[in-house]
Amino acid sequence: MLLNKNIRLLFCKRSEKEFFLQLYYLLGFYPNNIFYYRKAFTHKSLNTINKQKLCNERLEFLGDSIIDSIIADYLFSLYPNEPEGFLTKMKSKIVNRKSLNQIALQLHLNTYLQSNIPNIKENDALGNAFEALIGAIYLDKGYEFTKKYFIKSIIEKFFDINFLENNDSNYKSQLIEITQKKRQTIQFVSDIENSVANDNQIRFTTTILIDEQPFATAEGPTKKDAEQNASKIACEIIAAQ
Amino acid sequence: MLLNKNIRLLFCKRSEKEFFLQLYYLLGFYPNNIFYYRKAFTHKSLNTINKQKLCNERLEFLGDSIIDSIIADYLFSLYPNEPEGFLTKMKSKIVNRKSLNQIALQLHLNTYLQSNIPNIKENDALGNAFEALIGAIYLDKGYEFTKKYFIKSIIEKFFDINFLENNDSNYKSQLIEITQKKRQTIQFVSDIENSVANDNQIRFTTTILIDEQPFATAEGPTKKDAEQNASKIACEIIAAQ
Repeated sequence: MLLNKNIRLLFCKRSEKEFFLQLYYLLGFYPNNIFYYRKAFTHKSLNTINKQKLCNERLEFLGDSIIDSIIADYLFSLYPNEPEGFLTKMKSKIVNRKSLNQIALQLHLNTYLQSNIPNIKENDALGNAFEALIGAIYLDKGYEFTKKYFIKSIIEKFFDINFLENNDSNYKSQLIEITQKKRQTIQFVSDIENSVANDNQIRFTTTILIDEQPFATAEGPTKKDAEQNASKIACEIIAAQ
Repeated sequence: MLLNKNIRLLFCKRSEKEFFLQLYYLLGFYPNNIFYYRKAFTHKSLNTINKQKLCNERLEFLGDSIIDSIIADYLFSLYPNEPEGFLTKMKSKIVNRKSLNQIALQLHLNTYLQSNIPNIKENDALGNAFEALIGAIYLDKGYEFTKKYFIKSIIEKFFDINFLENNDSNYKSQLIEITQKKRQTIQFVSDIENSVANDNQIRFTTTILIDEQPFATAEGPTKKDAEQNASKIACEIIAAQ
């Protein structure tokens, strides 16, 4: 197999040879078709002749769904006795904007992604490129290969599942995931209150509306805290339903 | 293969034999493990000893993601030149609460699903059972088999893709899908207005808030129309971004 790849490398252009070896260094396997990966690492901000055809947005669309399935399958097997609500919560802890951007940074995708974005390390384009990369692997190697790669090289490498299981801090993102799953609308409405009884200390109150109906209310010293507290209550109500 | 299955049938209990044949009639293939399918057709409303372990909610969680991937892959291949926004829109036209319930009804899943729900034909439990069924097929037969089954026996049988492509009527569901994809919150706020200039005719105005910021406003003769009109404007703004 390796010999086969080496023979193929002999006939590549120098730039292709380099990219091929960079991909091997990044992924730990030899790709079959580097075209998919070039596309995954092309951001729409580049002034290409045919943006839609050459940028990574379509691959991001595909990769997003593939990641979702792989994680659903992984959690389904890992927790054979946990209810659906627990699995949904765990999935939202693994896949979210922040975690995708962090994985992309840890994989140094900023050195692979071609774009005209100035501070690429602080941009969602990196997490999107990671989704596109998973879309590229799926097209290149199929579902089963991508699943094995993702579990071994991403989940088991970058996530502490036990920690996530016991860390329920981000209730807001959990709640958003739960409502998205149920195709409900959600809104966080926050107010500032001056508590005269408590040295005029500012307190925030957040009310969560689900499908336009008030669902849970809580307060906190910052807007973020009030949102988290109200989300925690809402998650508990949903879990008890 | 058929002989093999027939030999296996000889050793089944009568109830299992019947269920096995019912599944063949429903799916057009012989399942390997009917346990998954029994679970897919067990609603939590049944008073089972261990609800979580025996009801179809976990399979629904799995099936939902698998359906999403299969449709993303199908649309990605079917439309090699369309942008990501078009693919997202088409996906939301194919998978939504209404379409899942309709497919389940057309497959007569109401005759398979065990539940204590009185009007099962009008309940979302049917669409959920369909998702669980796809989760069961995935566990029983793997991704590639499920993909082929879903494309041939569901998409190509129940959907007129050309019609969906040219039918943009449900802007609200498209918009919800788009914001879900971007992990944004969305709210539809509607008001009634009495138009004195127009024989006191009642008009509705809907404002759409995305991430709590006003995004688009429109009016219409019913709340539904106002929501659709505002959603259409919002979709157009997003498409032009």
